[in-house]
Amino acid sequence: MPDLTSVVEDIAADLSTRVERGQVASYIPMLAQVPIGQFGIAVTTAEGETITAGDAAVPFSIQSISKVFTLTLALGKIGDELWARVGKEPSGNAFNSIVQLEAERGIPRNPFINAGAIVVADAMLAGAQPREALGAILRFLRFVADDETITIDEAVARSEKETGFRNTALANYMRAFGVIQHNVEHALGVYFHQCAIAMTCRQLAMAGRYLAFSGRLSPSGPRVVAAERARRIAALMLTCGHYDGSGDFAFRVGLPGKSGVGGGILAIAPGKASVSVWSPGLDRHGNSVLGSLALERLAKAMRWSVFAG
Amino acid sequence: MPDLTSVVEDIAADLSTRVERGQVASYIPMLAQVPIGQFGIAVTTAEGETITAGDAAVPFSIQSISKVFTLTLALGKIGDELWARVGKEPSGNAFNSIVQLEAERGIPRNPFINAGAIVVADAMLAGAQPREALGAILRFLRFVADDETITIDEAVARSEKETGFRNTALANYMRAFGVIQHNVEHALGVYFHQCAIAMTCRQLAMAGRYLAFSGRLSPSGPRVVAAERARRIAALMLTCGHYDGSGDFAFRVGLPGKSGVGGGILAIAPGKASVSVWSPGLDRHGNSVLGSLALERLAKAMRWSVFAG
Amino acid sequence: MPDLTSVVEDIAADLSTRVERGQVASYIPMLAQVPIGQFGIAVTTAEGETITAGDAAVPFSIQSISKVFTLTLALGKIGDELWARVGKEPSGNAFNSIVQLEAERGIPRNPFINAGAIVVADAMLAGAQPREALGAILRFLRFVADDETITIDEAVARSEKETGFRNTALANYMRAFGVIQHNVEHALGVYFHQCAIAMTCRQLAMAGRYLAFSGRLSPSGPRVVAAERARRIAALMLTCGHYDGSGDFAFRVGLPGKSGVGGGILAIAPGKASVSVWSPGLDRHGNSVLGSLALERLAKAMRWSVFAG
Amino acid sequence: MPDLTSVVEDIAADLSTRVERGQVASYIPMLAQVPIGQFGIAVTTAEGETITAGDAAVPFSIQSISKVFTLTLALGKIGDELWARVGKEPSGNAFNSIVQLEAERGIPRNPFINAGAIVVADAMLAGAQPREALGAILRFLRFVADDETITIDEAVARSEKETGFRNTALANYMRAFGVIQHNVEHALGVYFHQCAIAMTCRQLAMAGRYLAFSGRLSPSGPRVVAAERARRIAALMLTCGHYDGSGDFAFRVGLPGKSGVGGGILAIAPGKASVSVWSPGLDRHGNSVLGSLALERLAKAMRWSVFAG
Repeated sequence: MPDLTSVVEDIAADLSTRVERGQVASYIPMLAQVPIGQFGIAVTTAEGETITAGDAAVPFSIQSISKVFTLTLALGKIGDELWARVGKEPSGNAFNSIVQLEAERGIPRNPFINAGAIVVADAMLAGAQPREALGAILRFLRFVADDETITIDEAVARSEKETGFRNTALANYMRAFGVIQHNVEHALGVYFHQCAIAMTCRQLAMAGRYLAFSGRLSPSGPRVVAAERARRIAALMLTCGHYDGSGDFAFRVGLPGKSGVGGGILAIAPGKASVSVWSPGLDRHGNSVLGSLALERLAKAMRWSVFAG
Repeated sequence: MPDLTSVVEDIAADLSTRVERGQVASYIPMLAQVPIGQFGIAVTTAEGETITAGDAAVPFSIQSISKVFTLTLALGKIGDELWARVGKEPSGNAFNSIVQLEAERGIPRNPFINAGAIVVADAMLAGAQPREALGAILRFLRFVADDETITIDEAVARSEKETGFRNTALANYMRAFGVIQHNVEHALGVYFHQCAIAMTCRQLAMAGRYLAFSGRLSPSGPRVVAAERARRIAALMLTCGHYDGSGDFAFRVGLPGKSGVGGGILAIAPGKASVSVWSPGLDRHGNSVLGSLALERLAKAMRWSVFAG
Repeated sequence: MPDLTSVVEDIAADLSTRVERGQVASYIPMLAQVPIGQFGIAVTTAEGETITAGDAAVPFSIQSISKVFTLTLALGKIGDELWARVGKEPSGNAFNSIVQLEAERGIPRNPFINAGAIVVADAMLAGAQPREALGAILRFLRFVADDETITIDEAVARSEKETGFRNTALANYMRAFGVIQHNVEHALGVYFHQCAIAMTCRQLAMAGRYLAFSGRLSPSGPRVVAAERARRIAALMLTCGHYDGSGDFAFRVGLPGKSGVGGGILAIAPGKASVSVWSPGLDRHGNSVLGSLALERLAKAMRWSVFAG
Repeated sequence: MPDLTSVVEDIAADLSTRVERGQVASYIPMLAQVPIGQFGIAVTTAEGETITAGDAAVPFSIQSISKVFTLTLALGKIGDELWARVGKEPSGNAFNSIVQLEAERGIPRNPFINAGAIVVADAMLAGAQPREALGAILRFLRFVADDETITIDEAVARSEKETGFRNTALANYMRAFGVIQHNVEHALGVYFHQCAIAMTCRQLAMAGRYLAFSGRLSPSGPRVVAAERARRIAALMLTCGHYDGSGDFAFRVGLPGKSGVGGGILAIAPGKASVSVWSPGLDRHGNSVLGSLALERLAKAMRWSVFAG
């Protein structure tokens, strides 16, 4: 097995010279301003070590990666009844598609497309005001990342809201079927704010530990969620974590992962490590070009694919 | 870790009493006649042992499970250029849907839906007649299963052909876009016959070893395909192997698997075992009800989920 | 040619005994309370006579019939540039479908499905506040119907708004593509209120005269709109006026018509008459069951089909 | 009213100089060879006169215009039970779309899209061999056109067959649902040959008389079909006769019409005339560019719109 630190440093060094980096997300004005030439990586191992390279200490907008954490919390809050309102299947459509909702009576295919994540945000409102729900999300992230400085970028949250007509359409559409059960603006408020949380690669790799270690912060550390729940969330990451590029990510990388249009990806190597990469340039499916490439190389070099026997 | 033999026997004993078994596939007359009250399981381990229970020695029609083996062969034959004609993404539609083909210029989403498997069958015709292509498929299966008795059930093949109007529609549709490149009847001939191959659970578990052991017949055995190719096929099984129930199978079972409407499922626990289950009753997505349940229990008892850390 | 008065009276008498009347619209609470056992008909002829039978003096919610009048006004206001934001083709989908919008970049297929009518309402807001736009609509209706008592049923308007999540979804979705250009709430406000206008059969038949007489209130009367515009609106009524039942209405009745989920239909026999029928029970496409039947019988008896040679 | 002969000659003279003519159909090799610079027009009036201009004596492939005549015959053969297997609604999709068939259990939306016309061809096979069905179609056309020279262009028929993979897909797909009831190759054989019938504008205008005159060859001539049936076929032409450009044709021209990808259009002015135009260049929906324009100008000049009052 090669040395992890060398592998991480080689990847960061090599990718820093890449010209082809995709396009920065343009539909949220605040994200469009992020300089494309950045790359960060952080790997937190079973031994509790965190190895970083590149721009691993620069905060970025986690966007859809937040969906993993809100799903964890919503399952803790309302349990498996969540699955009556959102499916577990890959969508076969773009992340903001509304077509599938019409065919399936307002029930989104999975919690990682926008519609599904809005349902999860709505579930967070059970017995709670939007402010309380957001507080719970932040507290959870600070706890699992062991970092009290994590916060919401309010400028990004406003930017999301002002341009979020498609998400507003999705939410109202689901409200028509009773799949959204609280005030539409409240559910969207939670959603827009969770997407605007800013984290560094280091913070994100730390936050993903409980998914890599069957619900614990390390193989023998404190339990955050039940082992089965952690495994199931990881399964959803593998089948649905990269929008309509999920199959390709599983094919190339072989690890459960969740991407965000801010250019970040959280990936986990079960039992071995939690990994976070970030580079703002996206491919046509909305996934980080360099981030995917970095994870492909890391998984190959370390033989971390879950499909390796 | 519990004893594998006990686990397998307990599962077989318990499932034999189940009343809820779904429906036997009705659209192929020969399959509709298979008695629903059967269940078989076979597990071939890294140590080379095969543990069986129930009707593990009864041959059944492997149907779509054949798609795993023809994909392996077609990639060996024409390499990665196959991916120009078939995608790697979950479909979000039923196994025989034609809708997606219209939106995506005749290119099927993945090699495990019917349309994709017909493209793979077409690729097997590169420089070969249908008879030769089928010969190659049978030879491969006999080799990896180490059993020369595996054969095609001609009555099932005829039954497929006579009722295969939707598959004929799919093939002609793709031919219109140049995605099918050989004679449509020839490609369908290969496809209908590969689906009609009859195997027992024991044979199928043996045949799946190369996927469980990174391309080898055992961790230290002879190499069948490159390690990376084996991992990639396993990735496709996890994201696309159970039609529109793939996400749910990953969520519940956590293993790469491929189901067939004959009621069989081949699943692999990378590095640990190749597993085959069979029970003819299907759920609404076309996956074996008891087969899925058996694998869920086996994976849980043995902690074989690829997502366990 | 039979006597029009007798024909109208016979139809009303016969239909009053019908048992099969469909279902009253249920998704707007105020409409769901309308007693199903009502039927009205009014025919205004080229000679300026208005013949009525049944409940022709009972006001009902005109709902989507309003779309004909707002289209007329919006074309007067912004002219043919409206057609850059809404198409002229039948939809092939339900009246409140959102699927087509995704495939066609937010541009609704025609001005008579909900999405298209919301675009028309948005066009009415060019240089005008919602209140002014609604004022213009009411003034126009009172003028063409020659009746100052026509008004908006505010209770219905509130009911529309409270349950209008799908329409809110449509409007936001189109706003994301820039097809809706003003404040979404304002456009919806105009739309919800125009649908809540209450009219009698007599008033509606009078209001439709300009469509029957090539833009004039009678063959030699004052001009309301250009002849070509009146013909074109009539063409849209024929191809798109009954949602996904438009083809069947043209097939059976052979007249341009526009239905509303309040149970009303406005139909025109070019050069001969403007006709309004009303009965609250709807078929599965949202068109009045008895209304369609009455028009079929009237057109047949009077040989008014536009396809008769 | 202007003089018809002058109007026709002016249109032909003006259009002969047009540069923008669209594209000749490319997917059938024999059609792709037709020189684009041709234009013909023929008008047969209620008085029995036929006025022609341009290339009105040049035979062209009538293609989908044949669907009007086979519908007439199939309704004569099996009556209204045809409507259990094909709808009457505009499709909202391209002429060769297969998407709608999946959503609606193999029943095409109307008899003028390809799938619907193949069902009509299948209905012609009730109690008849393909050769007999084609004989009946030719006999009918020769009778209503009063011209025994009308024939099938076998080279075009072969060309259709060799490239007809999408139509073969449609037919097999419908066969899977039992909507096609005879041998798929037979139904396609009839369909490919009916499309390959060659006619001149003069012959086609003559053939359309029974639709213009409520089922008779002239207002007082011999009856071909019942008046109601003629009106209903005309209604379908108006709502569905120009594929996904039907609404626009009704909007601009205001006459029932049926186009073919050979560049011909048959249109009728009920009670007044049967009109045929031909020019091989097509718009993106598959309708003749100059043909549509000629009909728009003719209908406007003669005030023939069915919506004029």
